[in-house]
Amino acid sequence: MSESGPIFLPKGFKFSSVTAGIKASGRPDLAMILAERRSSAAALFTKNRVVAAPIDVGRAALAHTGGRVRAVVVNSGNANCATGKRGLRDCKAVCAAAAKLLNASSSEIFPSSTGIIGVPLPVEKITSHLEPLLANAGGSVEHVRNLADAILTTDSRPKLASVPLRSGKAAITGVAKGSGMIHPQLATMLVYVLTDVIATPAQLKRTLRSACDESFNVISVDGDTSTNDTVLLLASGQSGIKLSDIQRPFEKALREVCRSLAEQIVADGEGVQHVIHLHIEQAKTRNEALQVARAIAHSLLVKTAWAGADPNWGRILAAIGRSGVPVDPKRVSVLIGAQIVCQRGTACKFDERRAHEELSKLDCRVGVKLGRGSAALEFLTTDLTAQYVRINAEYST
Amino acid sequence: MSESGPIFLPKGFKFSSVTAGIKASGRPDLAMILAERRSSAAALFTKNRVVAAPIDVGRAALAHTGGRVRAVVVNSGNANCATGKRGLRDCKAVCAAAAKLLNASSSEIFPSSTGIIGVPLPVEKITSHLEPLLANAGGSVEHVRNLADAILTTDSRPKLASVPLRSGKAAITGVAKGSGMIHPQLATMLVYVLTDVIATPAQLKRTLRSACDESFNVISVDGDTSTNDTVLLLASGQSGIKLSDIQRPFEKALREVCRSLAEQIVADGEGVQHVIHLHIEQAKTRNEALQVARAIAHSLLVKTAWAGADPNWGRILAAIGRSGVPVDPKRVSVLIGAQIVCQRGTACKFDERRAHEELSKLDCRVGVKLGRGSAALEFLTTDLTAQYVRINAEYST
Repeated sequence: MSESGPIFLPKGFKFSSVTAGIKASGRPDLAMILAERRSSAAALFTKNRVVAAPIDVGRAALAHTGGRVRAVVVNSGNANCATGKRGLRDCKAVCAAAAKLLNASSSEIFPSSTGIIGVPLPVEKITSHLEPLLANAGGSVEHVRNLADAILTTDSRPKLASVPLRSGKAAITGVAKGSGMIHPQLATMLVYVLTDVIATPAQLKRTLRSACDESFNVISVDGDTSTNDTVLLLASGQSGIKLSDIQRPFEKALREVCRSLAEQIVADGEGVQHVIHLHIEQAKTRNEALQVARAIAHSLLVKTAWAGADPNWGRILAAIGRSGVPVDPKRVSVLIGAQIVCQRGTACKFDERRAHEELSKLDCRVGVKLGRGSAALEFLTTDLTAQYVRINAEYST
Repeated sequence: MSESGPIFLPKGFKFSSVTAGIKASGRPDLAMILAERRSSAAALFTKNRVVAAPIDVGRAALAHTGGRVRAVVVNSGNANCATGKRGLRDCKAVCAAAAKLLNASSSEIFPSSTGIIGVPLPVEKITSHLEPLLANAGGSVEHVRNLADAILTTDSRPKLASVPLRSGKAAITGVAKGSGMIHPQLATMLVYVLTDVIATPAQLKRTLRSACDESFNVISVDGDTSTNDTVLLLASGQSGIKLSDIQRPFEKALREVCRSLAEQIVADGEGVQHVIHLHIEQAKTRNEALQVARAIAHSLLVKTAWAGADPNWGRILAAIGRSGVPVDPKRVSVLIGAQIVCQRGTACKFDERRAHEELSKLDCRVGVKLGRGSAALEFLTTDLTAQYVRINAEYST
């Protein structure tokens, strides 16, 4: 299931990547996912009101086709965001050029961009590389890995996850990039999940939304929502197996793939030393648990304490107190690892060395009991290091 | 008006400070503001649901007396927070001991604490120093300065502001400490504003609330709300001048004092290199402007860009987009200094060197026009430096 695990190839897709010269680094920066036939598609987009051109174009295209995609064209090195009407024109020009080569309609091409904000998309560089992109397309694991590499910006490693279905007769495989703002102005989480089950766009949307709620919606590196975030699920149908015949295993596998990609994204956050598994328990509702988790995960003081592996539960308690959830502090307990460090709102004796050791691990567990109900949630977040600040404070414009 | 300006002494108050041994550093850590007669009082407290014992006790005392205070007893070095029932008992014991010495009732003593969370208050150290505290009390400027010094935790300098009324026949003078979490577990903004006008507690409350809205409520260093935040306004009445006779000048002077203290607090935030004056304009309401200002001021990516004096308006635009205010990105403009750097949601040509120079200043101006209405707001915040992270990541427990 993890990146190092085997990759199962859903039938009906090809992958390709080239260096189009968009990134100054000269690394691969243009990629394509090709559905041999039109595939069913569902997508979720950033909730930011400021969105990049490909979000507007991709959303409209899916609405127009009712959720059918022939190819995904994704570039890194340029986000095509805050580029005004020209940005929309540029994005459509790329889709039109790809559609022509594939003998498809423009709205069957799903566009994605990630990279610098406010710089016009280098359309010519992209369109002139579409033919080599098509010529290079292939269905091997190597092709998938190369694609996962080409969509990166300053991620330190590619992110893949794969789960077989029906003993390998079908599969779900996902690739992802980035989280938080991984580099000045580079600002996007892109996730593409492919499967070969037979499914309608509506079926895909429903399962995708639920899987995202349990994965990408319960992670945070720095609390900033990008203008380009996209999660796309494509189903080729080529396995001959209907989603509805394997509803439960499919949902579970999709959740596993999304969860693994989300974990890989958090672990690869800029300057991250520790991944914190926040277990919020005894909330009245899941939303309430989420609200408390986010208040903790976004507190600079909590995140910096974690960077020092400091079991400073006072900061966690203070973050809970300002979360907006009407907690009764006298019922709130905080745990580090398996150890209670704050009992019902009050300091209690605990083994500080053990707590420090727990927070020194790569993966740490912090628990909160709200004493309000029985809803629970696991939220993934990170510490905040001086390295994060240094990277993001570089004068880049 | 500033710290370096002259201090005008409101009649009817004495000040005192001693070293009680609460701080390990051996610096002064216990202080008293003594009203020669009972003064009118109004206070505003933290909105955090997790509050320290002195907040509970002080709030109840003011309710009990209807807003009358004989003395303020404030210690630094210990926040008396998350100390449970014992914390309440300890706080009351301090008030009772002070009341006995002053021949007052316990509820006329207003308690404040700032410092480490979760450690029992060293009551004995405090009560045994109340007599020397009283013996040392005096009404000179030197006494005020010493008090401003004794309430500090890791602030780098004392914070005072003073404005005369009626050509010096009356005055408003304030002292303050801290903002954000200035040191691991030291977590409080304390503000005491004194005047000698004649006023009822209700009059004080009204003007204090309005002055706070224009000062302490429009600043943010790290977005974390402390468990001990307190702003207290005392009026001795000893000038013989009625507040109601100088309503406008009084309001203006109180706003000036609060504003100056707020600015001093922000400028002294941990690791701060730049104070950012955020001018939010063309909002529908003031609350809307505040919501946008806070989203910008709390964005790690915006704050780290400021640390690098980077005119990275894309991050500001993205923060506005996720603020929750239903902006139309096509109507949003961003200014750095007097220069437009993003025009109606789209990149525009600007002098990058000039923008970088503006953001290299100690005080920087960043403007946002929302294109929604005519409400405006100035919000004070800071950059986020690696120094802040280092200080707050120190293993302290």
